[in-house]
Amino acid sequence: MTELRKDPIVGRWVIISTERAKRPHDVSEQAAPRVAGVCPLCPGSERMTPPEIMAFRPDGGANDANWTVRVVPNKFPALRIEGDLGKAAEGLYDRMNGVGAHEVVIESERHDVDLYDLPPKQFEDVLWAYRERLIDLKKDKRVKSVMIFKNHGSAAGASLAHSHSQLIALPIVPKRVIEEMTGCKNYYRFRDRCLFCDITMQEMDQKSRIVEENGEFVAYAPYAPRFPFETWIVPKRHQCAYEMIEFEQIRSLAAIFRRTLRRLNLALENPPFNYIIHSAAFQEGAADYYHWHIEIMPKLTKVAGFEWGSGFYINPTPPEEAAKFLRELPE
Amino acid sequence: MTELRKDPIVGRWVIISTERAKRPHDVSEQAAPRVAGVCPLCPGSERMTPPEIMAFRPDGGANDANWTVRVVPNKFPALRIEGDLGKAAEGLYDRMNGVGAHEVVIESERHDVDLYDLPPKQFEDVLWAYRERLIDLKKDKRVKSVMIFKNHGSAAGASLAHSHSQLIALPIVPKRVIEEMTGCKNYYRFRDRCLFCDITMQEMDQKSRIVEENGEFVAYAPYAPRFPFETWIVPKRHQCAYEMIEFEQIRSLAAIFRRTLRRLNLALENPPFNYIIHSAAFQEGAADYYHWHIEIMPKLTKVAGFEWGSGFYINPTPPEEAAKFLRELPE
Repeated sequence: MTELRKDPIVGRWVIISTERAKRPHDVSEQAAPRVAGVCPLCPGSERMTPPEIMAFRPDGGANDANWTVRVVPNKFPALRIEGDLGKAAEGLYDRMNGVGAHEVVIESERHDVDLYDLPPKQFEDVLWAYRERLIDLKKDKRVKSVMIFKNHGSAAGASLAHSHSQLIALPIVPKRVIEEMTGCKNYYRFRDRCLFCDITMQEMDQKSRIVEENGEFVAYAPYAPRFPFETWIVPKRHQCAYEMIEFEQIRSLAAIFRRTLRRLNLALENPPFNYIIHSAAFQEGAADYYHWHIEIMPKLTKVAGFEWGSGFYINPTPPEEAAKFLRELPE
Repeated sequence: MTELRKDPIVGRWVIISTERAKRPHDVSEQAAPRVAGVCPLCPGSERMTPPEIMAFRPDGGANDANWTVRVVPNKFPALRIEGDLGKAAEGLYDRMNGVGAHEVVIESERHDVDLYDLPPKQFEDVLWAYRERLIDLKKDKRVKSVMIFKNHGSAAGASLAHSHSQLIALPIVPKRVIEEMTGCKNYYRFRDRCLFCDITMQEMDQKSRIVEENGEFVAYAPYAPRFPFETWIVPKRHQCAYEMIEFEQIRSLAAIFRRTLRRLNLALENPPFNYIIHSAAFQEGAADYYHWHIEIMPKLTKVAGFEWGSGFYINPTPPEEAAKFLRELPE
């Protein structure tokens, strides 16, 4: 079982494993179901994962091997769908049970292909799968917020080589999401406009941080990036939540997202990276002021004491230079 | 030169190098002054660092080689002491010049000794040096906040092997410090008591997360730790800022801090770690509600997409188990 605990000083929640104590050298961020030489995410290993939640396959039945994109529950989930929240105090501390969902989106049937090397149609299927899962999880009233993210490369936290992304559905709205939504809400109250819409307008006007733009989306280096070559992809259309994405937007997003990842891969020579879909928490009223987007963060520098202590980041690469470098790469 | 830029959504500041564009493969978090085979922090290399700010030495003059602890400006500083802030808007963005200070505390004359293996007296000198530098920097009215931290091991961001810690003086109060001070202030307004004093009382009462305690300090695993074996050292006496530390407290702190680092080193087999001194920003009025402390974070797990997106952490080791393990180690 896992437990959610809240830091009483800054309000940060953490997920704590309350299982049998591990010896210190057993500590690792994810206990992957490994069998020597066998990848649990490959076709033919369907029985090594819990039964699938959804899949794209040309024909055949659930849990058959002929899929291209497959979504399964995480075998060692950080949060479990069963049970009630059991919110409780422990002296001046707050806790609740680790209720939620933890799913794995297997992006390809091939063990050795990277996300950005998938055929465009299959990249679109991955983006559709994200949308479908969000719509489904939103029906569970215990779920307040869903994080969809990808860890690529072991330095970015990936523990399985087979290309996959993850989804964690949470019973609370995390601090980082509250901060972002509050920032946008305050701006909206003051100006009656969406902050991301205004930022996107300014970026398209200034052009110096733009990596690429197409009909529906713009990819740019943010003005104050934490990391070298950090790149955001933002819909031009005002939309607060990823699950509102429409058919023609998915095609447009797949095209710009895939090309941006390919640019980063080429420029930085297969860097470890994370991306996270920032989407409105499942609450009323965010439609006007919040704007979903994707943040891609190559992991070229190490986060050290200064960053942990201050929430301040030192970035040796100006975003204008990073964007120019990415923009001018050969296609 | 460097520039401070503010993220307009969550208010996070970053330090951006605005020097000549680096090629992507040149990206690294710190350009250390390296000469093959020569350590710039060793005795005899005094001319490789900028002139010293302070030093402990039995006799001899400034910049002589016979020191034991030495504080120098960083040769490649993130922030520089010269110049004015030049606060300005850039459309809807905010920026200012990279004014502040970036210093290196060389903790020993020996190249091959770790901080926790220093003689107790020398460990005390390091802690005194921190205090002296804070008192001096506080006189500069442009400085709003000072971070003192150590990166140990390359996975924790250290780029030089010779044992050292760092100090960065900032012209603004960073987000993480504001959050912590605000959390404490809100608690104080509600209860008229210091939150850290209350937490420390509860920890000493519950005992399950205590690692060690002495006359002036208590070392414990926090209730909601981000990382396995995260350990905090908190003064029992209410004090808002590290620079208020008194003579007998330094001896007590050196003893518990050194032993805690030794325990972590033994338990986790020389782990990379960061520690950060959390001390009140240089503003009026924090005396009642804020409480300085030290946070030590071994780096055993990788921070991945979920953590970046949510500000939520997954920790596989319950703090009660970590504290028990550390407590029961042979001395």
